[in-house]
Amino acid sequence: MTNMLSIARLAAQVAARQLTVEHLVGDALARIEPANRAINAFITVLGDRALADARRLDADLARGRYLGPLHGMPISVKDLVDVEGVPTTAASRVRRDHVARHDATAIARLRAAGAVIIGKTNLHEFAYGTTSEDSAYGPVRHPLDFTRSAGGSSGGSAASIAAGLCAGSVGTDTGGSIRIPSAACGTVGLKPTYGEIPCDGIVPLSRSLDHAGPMAADVASAWLLYQAMTGAPGSLASLPDPAGPGPGARGIRLGIPRRYFLDLLDEEVRARFEEAIDRLRQAGASVTDVDVPHVDLSGTIYLHIQLPESSAYHATMLERAPELYTLPVRLRLEMGRYVLAEDYARAQQGRELLQREVDATLENVDALALPTLPIPAPLLGQATARVGPAEMPVRALMLRLTQSFNLTGHPAISLPSGRTAGGLPTALQLVGRRHQTSDLLRLALRVETTLPPV
Amino acid sequence: MTNMLSIARLAAQVAARQLTVEHLVGDALARIEPANRAINAFITVLGDRALADARRLDADLARGRYLGPLHGMPISVKDLVDVEGVPTTAASRVRRDHVARHDATAIARLRAAGAVIIGKTNLHEFAYGTTSEDSAYGPVRHPLDFTRSAGGSSGGSAASIAAGLCAGSVGTDTGGSIRIPSAACGTVGLKPTYGEIPCDGIVPLSRSLDHAGPMAADVASAWLLYQAMTGAPGSLASLPDPAGPGPGARGIRLGIPRRYFLDLLDEEVRARFEEAIDRLRQAGASVTDVDVPHVDLSGTIYLHIQLPESSAYHATMLERAPELYTLPVRLRLEMGRYVLAEDYARAQQGRELLQREVDATLENVDALALPTLPIPAPLLGQATARVGPAEMPVRALMLRLTQSFNLTGHPAISLPSGRTAGGLPTALQLVGRRHQTSDLLRLALRVETTLPPV
Repeated sequence: MTNMLSIARLAAQVAARQLTVEHLVGDALARIEPANRAINAFITVLGDRALADARRLDADLARGRYLGPLHGMPISVKDLVDVEGVPTTAASRVRRDHVARHDATAIARLRAAGAVIIGKTNLHEFAYGTTSEDSAYGPVRHPLDFTRSAGGSSGGSAASIAAGLCAGSVGTDTGGSIRIPSAACGTVGLKPTYGEIPCDGIVPLSRSLDHAGPMAADVASAWLLYQAMTGAPGSLASLPDPAGPGPGARGIRLGIPRRYFLDLLDEEVRARFEEAIDRLRQAGASVTDVDVPHVDLSGTIYLHIQLPESSAYHATMLERAPELYTLPVRLRLEMGRYVLAEDYARAQQGRELLQREVDATLENVDALALPTLPIPAPLLGQATARVGPAEMPVRALMLRLTQSFNLTGHPAISLPSGRTAGGLPTALQLVGRRHQTSDLLRLALRVETTLPPV
Repeated sequence: MTNMLSIARLAAQVAARQLTVEHLVGDALARIEPANRAINAFITVLGDRALADARRLDADLARGRYLGPLHGMPISVKDLVDVEGVPTTAASRVRRDHVARHDATAIARLRAAGAVIIGKTNLHEFAYGTTSEDSAYGPVRHPLDFTRSAGGSSGGSAASIAAGLCAGSVGTDTGGSIRIPSAACGTVGLKPTYGEIPCDGIVPLSRSLDHAGPMAADVASAWLLYQAMTGAPGSLASLPDPAGPGPGARGIRLGIPRRYFLDLLDEEVRARFEEAIDRLRQAGASVTDVDVPHVDLSGTIYLHIQLPESSAYHATMLERAPELYTLPVRLRLEMGRYVLAEDYARAQQGRELLQREVDATLENVDALALPTLPIPAPLLGQATARVGPAEMPVRALMLRLTQSFNLTGHPAISLPSGRTAGGLPTALQLVGRRHQTSDLLRLALRVETTLPPV
């Protein structure tokens, strides 16, 4: 989308003082109000506070104090993540009276690197859904088609980037909640390696699966946010030239896990994926097929871990005031209370097996390449979708290609790969080696140059 | 006990060819048969095979091929651990027809370092108990008092060392199963840091709590076994001088977690512990009190993790042939099937909290010092024991001081600290920093020199 704000591009203008932070932040704020009436991306807008921050950052610049590429960048934050002095609603009536006392570590780091927090974004209640439609604040709507879901659970974050209302966002991803809305909205979203970015100050969904991560207009912007969130902010100069060691994608080795991951796809999604792979091959990448032998068990393993971990956190509130939850979220939370520990323990073993299997696929390739979502953004209220011969629940479909990497902890990034005939974005997911997230970002930067402009 | 076999002492004799391996192993085998009628420590004795190994190792020596301090040392193995070509009964009728196809990694490493496996030792069925009395092969009996338990679950291993039938043993420890029988029998037992010694080829009790480790007559012998089991066999010369950097215990900083760990103790156990601490203080150690704030939750947390993990492994067998289990083990396994995953997930959080709390106690001291067992070896069949004002179940009491460190993964060693008036051993437990097991062994070597000879 042409009006998206790229940190990588804007940072050069701010550093050169061709653009004031006040102007940049003021423009973003001015666009939020009318846009939000249509897409409902923000729960809280921090207008005055953001403008005050902007003026302070301009004064810093005038004194020669430049904090790096995030200096003055207007960033939104999923309303599951604490920003000091602001409610963290988790899009739930359960949390209506909550006000955060401290910044989450990830937020404090972004502020220290110069980011301006302009608002808190709408989400699927407690991050427990893939469409951002079950929210105490109403559904997030897709910026390109208001009848459709922006994906979820970080739907407001992706929509706010796609609509050009901010230069990036902080999301969370338990089964795909960063990558799914990024794919649906045509933006970039990174789930880092498990444990890399602290999750303190973030309402948990499922502690052993929760990841915080950056969302942005392009890979370079996501990388700059990622660096700051890990506590090691970089400079624009630290980003490698996308052309890398050779032009195009030369030397990149990609593995495609065709079985399971490519079994059930919308036909346009499949076509855009195969076209992206063809472009990568033509740009010099080598492509081989790989297999994760027990990946079919991902869904079962995921449910037996995620459901009870979520219910453990919510049990007290669920007993005290079940009516405050939206019905779909309440039903899932109640279901989780009946899972047996014996099954959880077995799922834990399955999870370790999957981790070894994904590690093994990455022994001879640099990254796995697969779609992020099997379908384009669904309609709001849509319960099932047809993929090839099968009619599947939308929720299961939307988690199908992402949740495996929450189980295994591998870093995974979603980037736009094209459009359907109807103009909806499709996306490519790249999965890297554990604890080598920067290598994955370096690779994604090169892959991005081979894909069609969004 | 004067007739125990110390690897540290015997290795020098073998290396100097003052003692043949055939003689050493033959003597041990000759002692096993009569002793075993009394104490029932061995399920399988590998007489011919051990003698063949001994002759081969003597031939190696004659050709100048010396494998290091474990060369020719007769070692027993808890019958939960695979030794190629030999049944692994787990002391259960369930496994009557099982024969191991491969050595467990820990066993293969000991063999490569020259150890001679002389037999498989009796245990509490499937390692699921603290007294070694529920066994398809009958109870292990204490070498000093045949009416008493040798502790468990690695009871046959500790008894075989205490009775001088072998120079060391391989045990496993899920809630204390190496340290408890070592304390009961007056031998040394080490539970390393979680994950340090591979548990492949070992029948699991509870995967996230299981540890394999060495048992021996003294700290130096346990250290040599530990080194080989981690895949880095050492030499006698690699062991530091017990006198260390200074004489006695000078410079050693010990923390005593008095609350909870010293609350419920047999009066003689308490007296021997305080005497040991006095000796350490006189030998130059500094001693301070420390506290693990949530340690009282250890028992609950342990049960909610261990019970269902054990039941997950046994579920199929338990449904197929419940009558093959001893009744106490069967009842515990059946109980574990009803634990909810929600409670398991909560216990997991409690476990992480305890780990941080024990880490914190070790910030300013080198090790924690506490008793291993609150009571001396109980009578076989004894259900409860009196500790101060309380009458407690023997099983809960025996796990009380050890299980916390299975939850947290910290290395812990038990060494004999004296005797009761009735002649039963008491023991001191030292707990070190995670992933610094060698530092703990170095410290234990110095502490050992300050304690009364056993």
